[in-house]
This record gives sequence, C-alpha cells and structure tokens, in this order.
Amino acid sequence: MKKILGTSLLLFGMAAFGQSTEDSIQFKKISTEILNNGKGYNELKELTKNIGHRLSGSEAYEKSVQWAAQKLRDAGADKVWLQEVMIPVWVRGKESLHIQTSNGKWKSLKMLSLGNSEGTGGKDLSGDIIMVKSLEEYDQLPAEKVKGKIVFFNYPFHQENVQTFISYRDASPYRRTAASLTAQKGGKFAIIRSLSSAFDDVPHTGNMRYEENTSKIPAVTIGNTTADELEVLLKNQKVTAKLNSNCGMKGEKRSHSVIGEITGKKDQDVIVVGGHLDSWDVGEGAHDDGAGIVQSIEVLRTFKKLGIQNKHTIRAVCFANEENGTKGGKQYGKIAKENNEKHLFAIESDAGGFSPRGISLEMNETQRNQIKSWVSLFLPYGVYNFEGKYSGSDIAPLHEMGVPTAELVPDPQRYFDIHHTEEDTFEKVNRRELLLGSAVMTQLIYMIDKNW
Amino acid sequence: MKKILGTSLLLFGMAAFGQSTEDSIQFKKISTEILNNGKGYNELKELTKNIGHRLSGSEAYEKSVQWAAQKLRDAGADKVWLQEVMIPVWVRGKESLHIQTSNGKWKSLKMLSLGNSEGTGGKDLSGDIIMVKSLEEYDQLPAEKVKGKIVFFNYPFHQENVQTFISYRDASPYRRTAASLTAQKGGKFAIIRSLSSAFDDVPHTGNMRYEENTSKIPAVTIGNTTADELEVLLKNQKVTAKLNSNCGMKGEKRSHSVIGEITGKKDQDVIVVGGHLDSWDVGEGAHDDGAGIVQSIEVLRTFKKLGIQNKHTIRAVCFANEENGTKGGKQYGKIAKENNEKHLFAIESDAGGFSPRGISLEMNETQRNQIKSWVSLFLPYGVYNFEGKYSGSDIAPLHEMGVPTAELVPDPQRYFDIHHTEEDTFEKVNRRELLLGSAVMTQLIYMIDKNW
Repeated sequence: MKKILGTSLLLFGMAAFGQSTEDSIQFKKISTEILNNGKGYNELKELTKNIGHRLSGSEAYEKSVQWAAQKLRDAGADKVWLQEVMIPVWVRGKESLHIQTSNGKWKSLKMLSLGNSEGTGGKDLSGDIIMVKSLEEYDQLPAEKVKGKIVFFNYPFHQENVQTFISYRDASPYRRTAASLTAQKGGKFAIIRSLSSAFDDVPHTGNMRYEENTSKIPAVTIGNTTADELEVLLKNQKVTAKLNSNCGMKGEKRSHSVIGEITGKKDQDVIVVGGHLDSWDVGEGAHDDGAGIVQSIEVLRTFKKLGIQNKHTIRAVCFANEENGTKGGKQYGKIAKENNEKHLFAIESDAGGFSPRGISLEMNETQRNQIKSWVSLFLPYGVYNFEGKYSGSDIAPLHEMGVPTAELVPDPQRYFDIHHTEEDTFEKVNRRELLLGSAVMTQLIYMIDKNW
Repeated sequence: MKKILGTSLLLFGMAAFGQSTEDSIQFKKISTEILNNGKGYNELKELTKNIGHRLSGSEAYEKSVQWAAQKLRDAGADKVWLQEVMIPVWVRGKESLHIQTSNGKWKSLKMLSLGNSEGTGGKDLSGDIIMVKSLEEYDQLPAEKVKGKIVFFNYPFHQENVQTFISYRDASPYRRTAASLTAQKGGKFAIIRSLSSAFDDVPHTGNMRYEENTSKIPAVTIGNTTADELEVLLKNQKVTAKLNSNCGMKGEKRSHSVIGEITGKKDQDVIVVGGHLDSWDVGEGAHDDGAGIVQSIEVLRTFKKLGIQNKHTIRAVCFANEENGTKGGKQYGKIAKENNEKHLFAIESDAGGFSPRGISLEMNETQRNQIKSWVSLFLPYGVYNFEGKYSGSDIAPLHEMGVPTAELVPDPQRYFDIHHTEEDTFEKVNRRELLLGSAVMTQLIYMIDKNW
C-alpha cells in the first residue's frame, strides 16, 4: 500500500485530546517519551540474550536477580532491594521419548517433560499407548484398560476462540492432572498434546501437579504435528512408547524477588507494577515474562524522566518463581501484611509484550467504574477493553488482602503459539508493541496515583 | 504465566451474544469456520513461497494471476475472470551505492532505488553529499549549494505516533518528491532515509514520481542504521557518494486483475472485497498485500461453505498494479461504469494481515452511522474502531463514482517495520491474526448484504 491517508485517522487519534485536559496531555507525554526513548526493548534483549531462560533455582535466575536490581537503579529508583524467598528447585536433565510401531523400528519424538514432573530416574519406562480425546472419555475407561499402559491425552486447543485464554483455560486441566489421573488407574506415564495454538511441532511445557496419595508418575508433552501423527498411527496399530528422563524436584533454595521504588511525595502508600522474573527452562522467556519485567521498570524510569511528582510510592516488583510455585508473589503479600504496608493498587503484565487492548480489573464496582470512566483517555492508545475481571497470579495474594488489582490485556492471538516453548525468544517481540504496553501501564498508574 | 482465568473474559467475549440475535450467531459461525478451517494462511504460503514478490510487469506477477484465478475457483466462485489492464513496467536491475570518506576508502552501503526511479544507465554518478533534515531546510538552500551535489534527505520516521500511518504520511513527501526537488536545484541524485519504524538497516522502497519539466534524476533509499552512520560522518568530513544503477521505466504491458464472484440470489448489485495482487520487487509481499488477497478469497469461500444466501453479488477483486500506478483499480472503476454495474459497497484490506481493530468508513453519515450501530456485534472480535474516514487506493475510483467504501484497520505497530522491504515475508504473518481479518471482512459483508 502506498496511499496517503486523510486526516481522519489523526483526528481519531487525537479525539480524546479535544478536551485538552491536563490528563490527556500527560498521557501523550508519557507515550511520546516511551515510544521515542524507552529502554525496555534493549533491556529485554540483554535479559534474553545475555541471560536467557531462568527457571527458579537455576544459576541464570540468580544472574537475572542481579541484572534486574541494576536496571532498577539505572531507572532512577530511590530504593532497590532483594526480597528473600524460598523457592522450589525443579531440574529437567536429559530426556527422550521413543515410539515403536508395527514395523518394529523405534522413532524419537520431540517432547518436553512437564514442569514439576518426576522423571524415570534415568531408566527406560515403556508400555503400549492408549489414546483418549477427552477427560470424559478417560473417566469411562475401566482401570484394567489403563493398567500398565501409557495414556495419550489428545485434547485439542480450540482454535475457534478469539480470546485464546479461553482455549488455554479449557485445555489446562489436561496438563495439570494427566499424571495423577493416569496413576490412579495404574498407568505408567502420561503424554499430553501441548496447549498450543500453533500448527507446528513445538512442545509447550508448563506446570503440572500431583494429587496427594497418588504415585508421582511422569507427564510429558508433544507438539501438535507429532500429536497428529501419533493419533493417525494409533488408529491402525499398536504403538509402544519408551520414556527416559531425569527430571524431578530437588528440594528448595533461598532466592529473591527484586523490588525498586520511587518514594511517594505525600505518603508511603504503595502502588505496585510488576511481572515475573523467572521463566520456564526453554526458549528465552521473552514474552513470558521478560516483557512484564522491562515494562514495569520502564514505568519507574518514565515517572523519573518526566519528573512526575507521584503522591504515593510506586514500586516495581520482579516476582520470583511465578511459573512453578508462585512463591515470590506469596512472600510479597506476606511481608506486606507483616510490615503493615498499605497497598492502594497493583497491576501485573504477564500475558505477553503484544499490542495492548485493555486493562482487566479485579476490584469493586466503584473502583471499576472510576477506571472505566477514563476510557476516552486510553482510546488513542488502542485501549478499549476494561471488561476482564481477573489479574495476575503474583498479585493474587495482594488481592486476597483486599487490594484492587489489575492486569494489562495485550492482543492474545500470538501468545499461545510460543508460550512456554523454545520459540519464546526476543525475536518474537516487537519494539513498538512492547513499549506501548509500558506506556499504558504508566498512564494508568499516573491516574491511580493522582486520583486515589 | 500459568494462571487459570475466571469466567469474566468469556463473558466479555460473549457480551454481544446476550441478545442471541441471528446476526451474533452468524458472526460466531463465520469466525469459527475461518479460525478452524480457513485456508488463507496456507494460500499465503503458496503465494509467497512458490511465487514470491511480484511487481507489475514481472513474470512472477503473471504467475500470480493464474494462481489467484485458480484459488478463486477452488473457493467456489460462480464465475472467475481476468480483467485486462495496461500496466507500467519498471525494472530494478543491478544497483550499488558507495561512499568515500576522508580516509579515502570506498564503502558499500545497503540501499534500494525507489520504485519508478530512473537509474544511472549503468554508469557511475558521483558527487559530494549534502544533508538536510527537512524539506523546510532544503527550501532554504540556495541552488548553488545543491548544484552538482547529492542531497541526503535525512528526515526521521516519527516513532511517537501510536497510529504509525500518521508517521508514514508525514514522511512520505520525502520519498515522493526528493528526486525532483534535487533536480530543480541542479543536484545529481537524492538519497532518502527510509520510511521505517524499525531500528535496523533494511531499506524500504516505494513509489516516487517525477514532476513535469524536471530532469529525471535517480532517487535511492537507505535503512535507518546506515542513515544514522551517514549523519554522523557528515558532521565531521566531506563524504562523496557514487551510484551505479540500471533501473528505469520500460514502457507498458498488457496484464490483468483477477476477479471472482458469487452471484446474488436477489439481484446482481455488487459488493466488492479486495486487495492488490502485485507487490514491490523485494521480500515476498506477504503483508503488502498477499494478506489482503487471501483474506478476500476467504470471504467468498466462507459464504459458500456456510451456505449463506447472499442477496447481492459478492465479488473478490485481486487488483493489478497498486504499488506503482493503481492501474488495476482505475480500470476496474472504468469498466464498472461502462457496464453500468451498480456497486453497493467496496472494502479493501491493504494495511497488513495483523490483528483487526476496526473498519475505516469513507461514506455518508447515514451509512457510517448504520455500520457503527453494529459495533456490539464486532466487539467480541476485537473490532471497536470505526472512526477512520479513508479507504484503499484500489477502490478510490469506485468511491469517486459515489460508492461507499471502507478499509480493514489492523493493528498498525509492526507494519512499517517491514513495509516494502525484503523483510515482508510469510514468516512475519501470524495465522490467527490473518484469519481474524478475513472473519471481520466476511462479517461486515454479511451485514451489508443483508441490510443494504
């Protein structure tokens, strides 16, 4: 396309500025500063390329703690500290999955053990595969049909949902429960089709958990094309699988969340903006959740750079261990309670560094309606959707203490193509989309700080 | 992130369906069909990978004509034909740009001649570079300072505009006029900083034009990092440039737009959905505008597949020669007038295959207001912005004949990173984002067909 547009787009972009209010001018200053001079994109490059993935308990995670503290100091935080927290240590180690079909040959499948799963202790664990399409179908299976077998939970990610989080939520019981369900009927291990919106062969890891009093058998996941192939094979023949893996929980470790704040000019009531510093142990944790980390640091930097006189304390929190324990978020809530710190508001960015479309609000109706009344200020930045009523898992403990919480709502179309995979890399993040997310969070915090 | 969302997102997604109207159900059917079974993404892969870029006049363009006709037949069009049109033939050929600094060494710069530019006829054309930051600065320069020189128009793409099309529009006079302005003061050739939102070294080509009675000197473009380096060099020293290029206009050629339609059940009044089949001669023309082509074909396929009984004729038009002449669009309008075909409405997709956010409406207030009244139907698909008042350049001739026209408005953040470059490849297109665009166009055409 080469056309020259009329002025209408400009007019739309400026609609909210017709009022020429102080707030609309401040919104524009914030957005201009970040789109022109934002450092989040380059910082994300450092985090992903110099440190890489950073699962709780890993050396890389500890490096990222030091890195985040330095970035918060660079951003001009008045105070930066590490908050101690005990986190679980899960280690993947070497792993392989092979199948044997009627021709007798063994074939290697691309796979990942699910996070927190136990492995086979480095020994081969093998058996015939049986496939179910749904939990309902599995429930109908008598235990004798499962005993000694490997269960392939072949439940698809529903492509038809425009809001991909609905499909993710719909399929996540498979990832969470497949191992224990299989164990309860005497199966050897579970294979699940990845929770993936992509038509590729990339396996998506993620958290699973064991039911109490159920033996801890392994759970692994395969990408969509391998799952498709396995489905076809199982229609015509017996397929035997052999898993060899070394993953498992290795106790706990002392680690840290990272916190930086700019002190309130009127009081020390706290407004939190955060993301989680840990990631799964594949890819680079770029969208999940390096994006949320650099966006949160950008909020502090922008307040400092523009000299906005914040009434309340604004705190950027880089939470530890969101992925496989949420220990950082829980500890933050515990310490806030112990120290009797008043928290006014908390927002998390943990749905990817994509173009922002809204802010989800988990709070009472009066607070919701006040934020929704600011919609015309946000519209020029592409933010129109304030209907969600959830917020990030790291700030759930704050919410349980009565703090109004929120989450940035970016466009959801690409997230589950790369979520928890080797494909979640810096290259998948667009500079402008990432920075716009920081701008919208800064704008919201400016409004909350001013009006609450 | 691993959290399990509450039901609020689902409720938001379904808000418009509270009415349970026939229309909201039909919208959902359309979206579900396309997100589950849409062929546009695979078709785009064929077009970009098997044919590639396809500038007017190239052999590749002629292949794409045959390909598009076949895809329209596959989609179930009742009638498919080629519409003859004379198009300009511009050929790039070999080209190189070198600079020499005070150390005496020559260095090659990554560059592209601008589309429709004349070259140096395969001979070296050299001179000292002078730099201007703006057209205003250039206007102030006396002709004797330009005579015999090479002018570097170093005007930046404004990152601070959320609506990137505003920045594109703002900078496009440089691309369009640099050559003639330079010639008018006796310069040898013009270099422009690319119209690019990316912080990389990729040059963006695009259309330029010569003023009448002005000598046709060459115009070339360089990417942002080369422009940055050149800017620094020019502060301290004399820099000589040497261009050698073979590009130029090679007359006209008989070619075709491709049209497919499904016949109206009530009348043969026409609703057009289209994109342009040609692209620039770099990259693969994936977002610009392979996306619009496959989306338009998807609209026809979906009507057929769902058995929607369209009252009026729905026509997918793959326009020839949008990039450097708009001859396909002009010819389509001319033939429509000659044949006295009544056109009810036309929409184009030519702003990239990104996640849709709105529909721009170029029509009278009554028509605008009717379409805007449908907003609650579109909201669950992320479409909220009906404020734009422009439409695509291929359907401008229809608009001039009084036809209400529109354009799909996708998210604009990534487009000018890759627009008119070697980076506009299939890999930059996301399946779900592309298909959602087709769904929204199909939904709109369903409403127009039913209500107009």
